[in-house]
Amino acid sequence: MDYKKIIQEIHEEVMPFRGDGNVASYIPELEKIQPDQFGMYLKCLGGADYEIGASQTKFSIQSISKVFSTTMAYELLGEALWEFVGVEPSGDPFNSIMQLEYEDGKPRNPMINAGAFVISDILYSRLDNPKEDLLKFVRIIAGEEDIHPNAAVIASEKSTGYRNASLANFIKSFGRIENDINDLLDFYYFQCSIEMTCRQLAHAFQIFANHGKLPGDNVQFLTSSQIKRMNALMQTCGFYDESGDYTFKVGIPGKSGVGGGIAALFPQEYSVAVWSPRLNTKGNSVMGIKALELLTTKTGLSIF
Amino acid sequence: MDYKKIIQEIHEEVMPFRGDGNVASYIPELEKIQPDQFGMYLKCLGGADYEIGASQTKFSIQSISKVFSTTMAYELLGEALWEFVGVEPSGDPFNSIMQLEYEDGKPRNPMINAGAFVISDILYSRLDNPKEDLLKFVRIIAGEEDIHPNAAVIASEKSTGYRNASLANFIKSFGRIENDINDLLDFYYFQCSIEMTCRQLAHAFQIFANHGKLPGDNVQFLTSSQIKRMNALMQTCGFYDESGDYTFKVGIPGKSGVGGGIAALFPQEYSVAVWSPRLNTKGNSVMGIKALELLTTKTGLSIF
Amino acid sequence: MDYKKIIQEIHEEVMPFRGDGNVASYIPELEKIQPDQFGMYLKCLGGADYEIGASQTKFSIQSISKVFSTTMAYELLGEALWEFVGVEPSGDPFNSIMQLEYEDGKPRNPMINAGAFVISDILYSRLDNPKEDLLKFVRIIAGEEDIHPNAAVIASEKSTGYRNASLANFIKSFGRIENDINDLLDFYYFQCSIEMTCRQLAHAFQIFANHGKLPGDNVQFLTSSQIKRMNALMQTCGFYDESGDYTFKVGIPGKSGVGGGIAALFPQEYSVAVWSPRLNTKGNSVMGIKALELLTTKTGLSIF
Amino acid sequence: MDYKKIIQEIHEEVMPFRGDGNVASYIPELEKIQPDQFGMYLKCLGGADYEIGASQTKFSIQSISKVFSTTMAYELLGEALWEFVGVEPSGDPFNSIMQLEYEDGKPRNPMINAGAFVISDILYSRLDNPKEDLLKFVRIIAGEEDIHPNAAVIASEKSTGYRNASLANFIKSFGRIENDINDLLDFYYFQCSIEMTCRQLAHAFQIFANHGKLPGDNVQFLTSSQIKRMNALMQTCGFYDESGDYTFKVGIPGKSGVGGGIAALFPQEYSVAVWSPRLNTKGNSVMGIKALELLTTKTGLSIF
Repeated sequence: MDYKKIIQEIHEEVMPFRGDGNVASYIPELEKIQPDQFGMYLKCLGGADYEIGASQTKFSIQSISKVFSTTMAYELLGEALWEFVGVEPSGDPFNSIMQLEYEDGKPRNPMINAGAFVISDILYSRLDNPKEDLLKFVRIIAGEEDIHPNAAVIASEKSTGYRNASLANFIKSFGRIENDINDLLDFYYFQCSIEMTCRQLAHAFQIFANHGKLPGDNVQFLTSSQIKRMNALMQTCGFYDESGDYTFKVGIPGKSGVGGGIAALFPQEYSVAVWSPRLNTKGNSVMGIKALELLTTKTGLSIF
Repeated sequence: MDYKKIIQEIHEEVMPFRGDGNVASYIPELEKIQPDQFGMYLKCLGGADYEIGASQTKFSIQSISKVFSTTMAYELLGEALWEFVGVEPSGDPFNSIMQLEYEDGKPRNPMINAGAFVISDILYSRLDNPKEDLLKFVRIIAGEEDIHPNAAVIASEKSTGYRNASLANFIKSFGRIENDINDLLDFYYFQCSIEMTCRQLAHAFQIFANHGKLPGDNVQFLTSSQIKRMNALMQTCGFYDESGDYTFKVGIPGKSGVGGGIAALFPQEYSVAVWSPRLNTKGNSVMGIKALELLTTKTGLSIF
Repeated sequence: MDYKKIIQEIHEEVMPFRGDGNVASYIPELEKIQPDQFGMYLKCLGGADYEIGASQTKFSIQSISKVFSTTMAYELLGEALWEFVGVEPSGDPFNSIMQLEYEDGKPRNPMINAGAFVISDILYSRLDNPKEDLLKFVRIIAGEEDIHPNAAVIASEKSTGYRNASLANFIKSFGRIENDINDLLDFYYFQCSIEMTCRQLAHAFQIFANHGKLPGDNVQFLTSSQIKRMNALMQTCGFYDESGDYTFKVGIPGKSGVGGGIAALFPQEYSVAVWSPRLNTKGNSVMGIKALELLTTKTGLSIF
Repeated sequence: MDYKKIIQEIHEEVMPFRGDGNVASYIPELEKIQPDQFGMYLKCLGGADYEIGASQTKFSIQSISKVFSTTMAYELLGEALWEFVGVEPSGDPFNSIMQLEYEDGKPRNPMINAGAFVISDILYSRLDNPKEDLLKFVRIIAGEEDIHPNAAVIASEKSTGYRNASLANFIKSFGRIENDINDLLDFYYFQCSIEMTCRQLAHAFQIFANHGKLPGDNVQFLTSSQIKRMNALMQTCGFYDESGDYTFKVGIPGKSGVGGGIAALFPQEYSVAVWSPRLNTKGNSVMGIKALELLTTKTGLSIF
C-alpha cells in the first residue's frame, strides 16, 4: 500500500472544501483559530509514519478526550462501568437533555456530553489526582510529554457552558453524579482543553488498533476484548448525530471533537488523526470527515 | 477453525436461556409458535456448511425482510436512495412516531418500520409486480424456490397493525409516501410474512459477506462498495434500540426480526442465521443474540 | 349596556386587521372562500339581538362542532365520560401525536382532534343514527332547520387528512377507539363540515350562557353544574395552543374553528358568534379574536 | 350566604380524606411537618371573616409566592412583561425541561418554575433590595408584619435542587437570564420559603378579588384590567398539570404550593386560603382542592 501517495492525494482532494463549514462558535476561545488549516498523520502498526500539512500543530482535542477518560474508567471498573452509562447511539444532538428524562438520567453512551459527565464523576471519585492522572495516561499512550491543557479554553468553556451545567445538574437530580457540579465541570473542561497534535493522537490511538498495546511495548491497556468493545463503541457513537452516516461512508472506528480533530483506526493496520477547524452542522470537521472517507476508499481497506 | 465444534458448544451453552423472554405478542399468529426452538446455520464462503437444531424449520422473517427490500431499492435508485431515507440509528423504540415529527417525516434509516414504509413505497411505484418481484429476488439469493409468504400472518398483522397504519399515514402527511396506505401496508406485511429457514437465510446473506456475489456465481448484486455500506447500515441500525449493545457484544453486521430470526455475516468469511422465537424487551431473539455473541467469542474473529 | 353601539364600534375597529392572517390551507375546499369577510351576532339572554356584517352567511363550523359532540356524549355518559378523555389543556399544537405516547393514548381533552375522535367513537357506538342524531341536536339548539353538512368539504378533508388518520390509528392502537377508523373519520368530518351562520351559533350557545336551557324553553340540556363544567372546559381548552392567551385577553368561555368562526358566551348575560376566515398562526380567526377582545373591554363585563 | 355554616360543613366533609396523599418529599425540611393538619380562612370583601382549623398556623407558601413575584414584575414592566414569559398552560409536569427546548427557552407562563426564574431574574435586576422589597410588598398586602422566610427551608431546597439548577442553567443558555444562577436561585428559594398563615394569604389575595385594592384602602395594585389578567392566568396555569381539572371542578382563580397551601378568590365576592400538607400526585393539596370544590358547590357561586 502506497500510503505516502494516498496521503498526498487526499491532501489535494480535500482542499476544495477548505472554506466549507464554520469553526465552533459557542466556545469563544476556539473561534480565534485560523480556520483553514488541515493536517493529517497516519501511523502503520508496522512502524511507518506518513504526515502532511499541519500534522504537528497543537489543537484542542475536545470530545476526543472522551475516548481517553472512558478507557481509564473502563480500566478501573471493568464491565461494571456499563451500569453507569450505556452503549447505545443517542440519535439526538450531542447536548440534548430530552432523552435523559425518559431513561431515568442514565446517559446513552460515554461519547456524548451526558455520558462524559458520568465518566468524569467516576474518575473524580476514584483517582487520587484526577487531572494529573488523566494527563499522565494521555502522555504515556501518546509517547510524548509535551501535552498540556489550555487554561484560556477552560475559562472560555466555563463562561458559556450553561447547557453543560444544566445537563450535569439534571443527571445529578437522578442521583447519578456524586461530586459537586462545579468540581466536575472543572475536571471535564480540563480534559476537553487538552491540546495535542495529529502526530500525538495517532500515536495514542495505536492502542485501539493494536489490541491494547503500543507497538514494541508490553504494557497492556484494557484487555484485547475490551479494546474491541471500545472500537465498537466509537463506531456506533463516535460522531454525535452523524455516527451512522460516518460509519456508512468511512466505516472505521473513530472519535471527533469540536476543535476540528478526528482520531480513527483500522484494526491491526493503522491509526490516523486528521485536523481541520471548520465543522459541519453536526459538529464534525468537514475536511476531516472527507479525508477519512478518501482514505478508506483509496486504501480499499474496510472492516465491512 | 473448527466451526463444527463451535456450533455444538454454542448449542449447549444457549440451552440454559431456553425459557427466557417472550414470543412477540402483538402479532397473534406468531404467538402460536412453539417458543423453545433453536436453530443455527453457518455457511463459510469457502463452501463448508454447519448446522444444528431447527436449522431447516421455516419461520416468519419479519424485519429481516427489510434488508432484502432495501437492497432492491438501493439497486434501483443508487445513492439517490438516501434522499428518501437516512442512515442514522434512531435511538428510539422501533415503532415510535415522535422522532419523525422533528425531522420532517424523513425516516432515520430503512431498518426501522418508518424507513421500511418509504422503501416499500419506492418499490411499489417502480416494480411491475412488487410482490412477485421481491419474492423472486429472495428466492434467487437464497438459492431455493420453496420460499412463500404466510397469508395467516399477513391477516394477523393487519388486524392489529394500528400503530403501523398510524406511522404510515403520518409519513404520508409529509408527502413522503405516494401510494395508497392500504396497498402499501399490504405489500409491507407480505414482505414480513415471508417464511424462510436458517439455511435459506444464511445462503442469501452470502451476498453481503462476499462483496455482492453468491460464491461460485458471477451475478453482482449492488457494487462492492454498496455492499459494504449495507453492512455498515446493518451494524449501526440492525437491532432496533439494541443496535449499539449488539455491536458492542457481537460486533458483526446483522439484522433481526420479531419472528425470532437473526441473519448476520463476517465479511469475507461466513454468513450465519439463527432462530429462536423468544424475544428480549428490545424485540430481539434471546438465544439468537447469545448464540452470535458466543460465535464471535469462540472464533476470535472480529471486525474491530 | 348599549350593545348596538359596541357592535358597530367593534366592526370599525377590526377592519384594519382585515388582511392579516391566512385562510386554512390544509383543507383545499376552505381555501376557496373570500377571505376578508367579517360577521358578528350577539344574543342577550333577555332577548335582544345585535348583528353586523356577514352575520347570516354560512361557514364551516369545523372544531366548534366539538362542543356539540362533547355535549351529546356528556349527556349520554355523565361524569363517566371523563374516563375516556381528560380536561387538561394540551399545551401543544392541535394535531400533535407526541403527548399521547406518554399518556397511554388518552387524549388530554375533547376540544383537540385526538379527544374529538374518542368522543365521536362514543357517539358512533351508542347513537342509532350518529349523523342524523347529531344534526338534529344542533338544529334544535340553534332553533333553525336550515343547517347542513357540506359534502365537498368532507371530501376535501378526507383527501388530505393523513395526520388525522395517523392520530386516530394511534389512539386505536391503545384500544381507545372501537369503531373502524374510516367510519369514524367519516363521522368526524361530517361534524366539522356542518355549515352555520353566526346567528345560528349564537342561538345554540345560549344553552351554555343560560345553565342548560334555551331562553323561554323548559328543555334542560345537561345539568346546570355540567354546563358550568363545559364552560370551564372551553375556557381552558377552547383555542388550541392559544387558550391561555385567549383567556388572558378575552376571558370568556368559547370555541374556535379553522373555518374562521368563534362561538362564545358570558354566563347569564349573552352568547355571541363571530366569523372571519383569516387565521393566525395558532389557527384562530384574527378578526374574531380581536372582536371578542374588544367586546369584553367595551362592555367591561368580565368573569374575572 | 351562610359562610359560617358552609365552612363548618366543609371541615367535616374533608376529614375523611385526611390520610390521603403525601407530604412533598423532595424538600427534606417540609417532610418534618405534621401531615394531617387542615386550616381554612375566608374573607368576604364586605368585611366578614370565617375561619376553621389551623387557619393561623404558618406554613411554607412555596409556589403561591409566584403570584406575588409576578404581580411585582407586572407592576414594573407592564404588558412588556409578556415578552419575557408566556401565558399559556404548560401541559407538562411543573419542572420539565423538554418544552423549553422547542420554544427557544421562553417559559410558558410565570406559574411554573421556569417562568418564576425569569420573573425572579427581572426583579433581581431591577429592585434595589430584591428580598427586602418583595417581603415588604407581601407584608403590605397581607396586612401583617409577622411574615418571614425560613432559612432551614431555603437550605433544604438548595441541597436537593439539582433540577431547578438544571432548569435555570438551561434557560440561561438561551440568554433569557442575566443574573448569576446561584444568586438567582437563592432569591427564588427565599420567596418559596416565606411562611404565612391562611389568614394572611386570604388577606393578601383580596387585591385580586377587589380589582387591585385592599378593601377600605385607596392604594391601587396593578390596574383593574391587569388584575383580571392575573386572575385569568391563575385560572389556566395555577395548579401545575392539574389546572384544567381544577378549573373544571372548582372554577375560581387560585394558586397552589407544594407546602400544601392554596389561595383563591371569587371576583368581587371573597378571597380564601386553605392549607393541608398532604399532596396528590400532581403536587396539589388533597384536602385543599376538596375544600375549594365543596366551597363553590355549597355557595352555588361560579364564574361560569
